[in-house]
Amino acid sequence: MFGEFDLIRGIRKEYRVSPQVRLGPGDDCAILAPRLSATLATTDMLMEGVDFILAEAGPRAVGRKAMAVNISDIAAMAGIPTAALVSVALPQGKETKAMAIELLRGMRDVAEEFGVPIIGGDTNSWNGGLVINVTVLGEPNPHCGPVLRSGAKVGDRIFVTGPCGGSILDRHLNPRPRIREAVELARRLRLHSMIDISDGLSADLGHILEESGVGAVLNAEAIPIHPDAVRLSQGTGSTPLEHALGDGEDFELIFTVPTAEVDGVRESGLAVEIGEVIEKGFFLARKGIREPLLPKGWSHPL
Amino acid sequence: MFGEFDLIRGIRKEYRVSPQVRLGPGDDCAILAPRLSATLATTDMLMEGVDFILAEAGPRAVGRKAMAVNISDIAAMAGIPTAALVSVALPQGKETKAMAIELLRGMRDVAEEFGVPIIGGDTNSWNGGLVINVTVLGEPNPHCGPVLRSGAKVGDRIFVTGPCGGSILDRHLNPRPRIREAVELARRLRLHSMIDISDGLSADLGHILEESGVGAVLNAEAIPIHPDAVRLSQGTGSTPLEHALGDGEDFELIFTVPTAEVDGVRESGLAVEIGEVIEKGFFLARKGIREPLLPKGWSHPL
Repeated sequence: MFGEFDLIRGIRKEYRVSPQVRLGPGDDCAILAPRLSATLATTDMLMEGVDFILAEAGPRAVGRKAMAVNISDIAAMAGIPTAALVSVALPQGKETKAMAIELLRGMRDVAEEFGVPIIGGDTNSWNGGLVINVTVLGEPNPHCGPVLRSGAKVGDRIFVTGPCGGSILDRHLNPRPRIREAVELARRLRLHSMIDISDGLSADLGHILEESGVGAVLNAEAIPIHPDAVRLSQGTGSTPLEHALGDGEDFELIFTVPTAEVDGVRESGLAVEIGEVIEKGFFLARKGIREPLLPKGWSHPL
Repeated sequence: MFGEFDLIRGIRKEYRVSPQVRLGPGDDCAILAPRLSATLATTDMLMEGVDFILAEAGPRAVGRKAMAVNISDIAAMAGIPTAALVSVALPQGKETKAMAIELLRGMRDVAEEFGVPIIGGDTNSWNGGLVINVTVLGEPNPHCGPVLRSGAKVGDRIFVTGPCGGSILDRHLNPRPRIREAVELARRLRLHSMIDISDGLSADLGHILEESGVGAVLNAEAIPIHPDAVRLSQGTGSTPLEHALGDGEDFELIFTVPTAEVDGVRESGLAVEIGEVIEKGFFLARKGIREPLLPKGWSHPL
C-alpha cells in the first residue's frame, strides 16, 4: 500500500520555496509568515460522483479542479493566494499510488501557476470513493483589502468577467481562477462587492443581494452566454440564457461598482455590465419588461 | 435534502467572536488577523471505517475527534490554536441533517474548550461514507516559537506527557489535545523537539529521530503504560509494553530537552522521562540490555 509518508516525501522533494513559507510539509504544522496583517482562508471538498466522474476526468484533472476552486474563492475577494493544504482519501487498489501522484501533479499544475506552495497535507486510503479537500490561505488585496459579498449599494452596476453556462460539458473540470482579473480591477477602481460563480450566476448574485440587503435587475440581453450553454441547450430543453443564469461552476467573477467606476470597468475590458443594484427584489428585464427571478434560477420557464 | 446553506447559517448563528477573526463563515473566505508574524497551519481528514465506526461512535464523537486531532498538531509545536475550517461529506439519507448538527456540535465541544472559532467550511452530501476534514490555524508559542521535530540533539532526554497504548478501546475517539501542557512546558523551560503521538510512541519518536538526524535509546521500565494497554493485551497476544510503544492515537506529546532542563520537567509534573537521544540507532533498553527497535514497532516479539 502506498504510504502517507511517500506522498509527503514527494511533496517535500518538489516543494518550491516561497519567501512567506517558513516551514513546509513534514512537521506537525506548516508555518507561514504573512506579509500583511490579515489572512484569508477558504476550504472546499470534492467528492467522486458529485464533483467529478473519476473514470472520465482522470485524477490529474481532479487535482487541478480541487486546487482551482479554492484559489477562485481567494479571487472572489480580490485576494492573493499564498499557500495550500491538501487532504485526500484515495480508493484502495492497484492504482492508489499512481492516482496520488497524478492528483498531486494536477494540484501543482494550478498551484504553481498562481505561486501557491503546498505547505501541508494528509494522505489516506480507504475502500470508498476519491475525496479531496483543499484549504487555501491568502492575503487581502493591498489596494482595497478583502472585497466582501456584503458591500453592494443601491445604484451599483453589476458586472461579470466572462460568458456563462454549460460548464458541465467540460470547463467545470478546468476552472481558471480569475486572480489576475480581480487584482487588476482592484488596482484600477473601487469594487463594492464580489463573488465567484460556483452555484450559478443568479444564485451567486443572490448571495451578494442577501448579504448586502439589496435587490437587483439583470438585463437579459446583456448577459454573456457561453457557446457551451448554446450547445448544452440543444439537448436539455432549456434556453441558452437559462443555462447562463442557472448553471454552476463557471468561476467567472460577479462584482458591483458605484456608477462613477463604470467607465473604468469598460476601459479595462475585463468585464461586461449585466444589471443594476436596486432596493429590493430580483428581476430579469427582457426588452425592458421585468420578470421576477428566483435566486436559484427561474420563477417560470421562458 | 439538507442544504449547505443551512449548516453555514447554523455555524454563523452560534458563531462566537474572537478578536482575531475579522470575518467568519458565509463569504468566499474567512479573514483572520493574526497577532503574531507567523501562522501555523495543519489539516487532517477522517474517514468512516478507517478512523471511526460511525454506528459505534456516533457523529458527535466523530466531530470531537476530527477537531481534537488537528488541535493536537498545534499542541505538538507548542502553538496556540486560533481558528478552524471544516469540510464534511455526509452520507445521503434521512439522518443527514441530524448527523450534520451532531458533527458540528462535536466539533464545537472541542473547539470552544480551546477557544477556536470555526471560521469557514464546506458542507456536502454524497452516496459514500462520512468524511470530515478539519484545518486548524494557530500562532507560534510567544516564548519559544514553534517547536519542531528537527531540533533533537545528542544527549537530550526524552519525555512523554502520559501513559500510552490501547487507545483503540475508547480514548482514540475522545483525544485531549495537550495544548495547556505544551504551553506550560514552553513557559518553564527550553524544548528542543516535540511531536504528538498519532502513529504510535515508537513511530512518532522515529519521526523526531529522522528529522533531527539522531538516534535514541528508550528505557523499557520507564515507559508509562496505560491501563487500556493492559486490558487490550489480554486479548491480542501482545504485551502491554508492545501496545504502549506501537499503538497510535494516544495524542500524548513526546519531547526532548537538554539535560539542564530535566529537573525543570520533573518539577512541572507534566511528563515522565523515557529515554535519551544518542548519535544513531533506535534501541529499547531492558534491564540495561539494548535491543534494536524499529520505528514502526518491534524488531521481534518480546
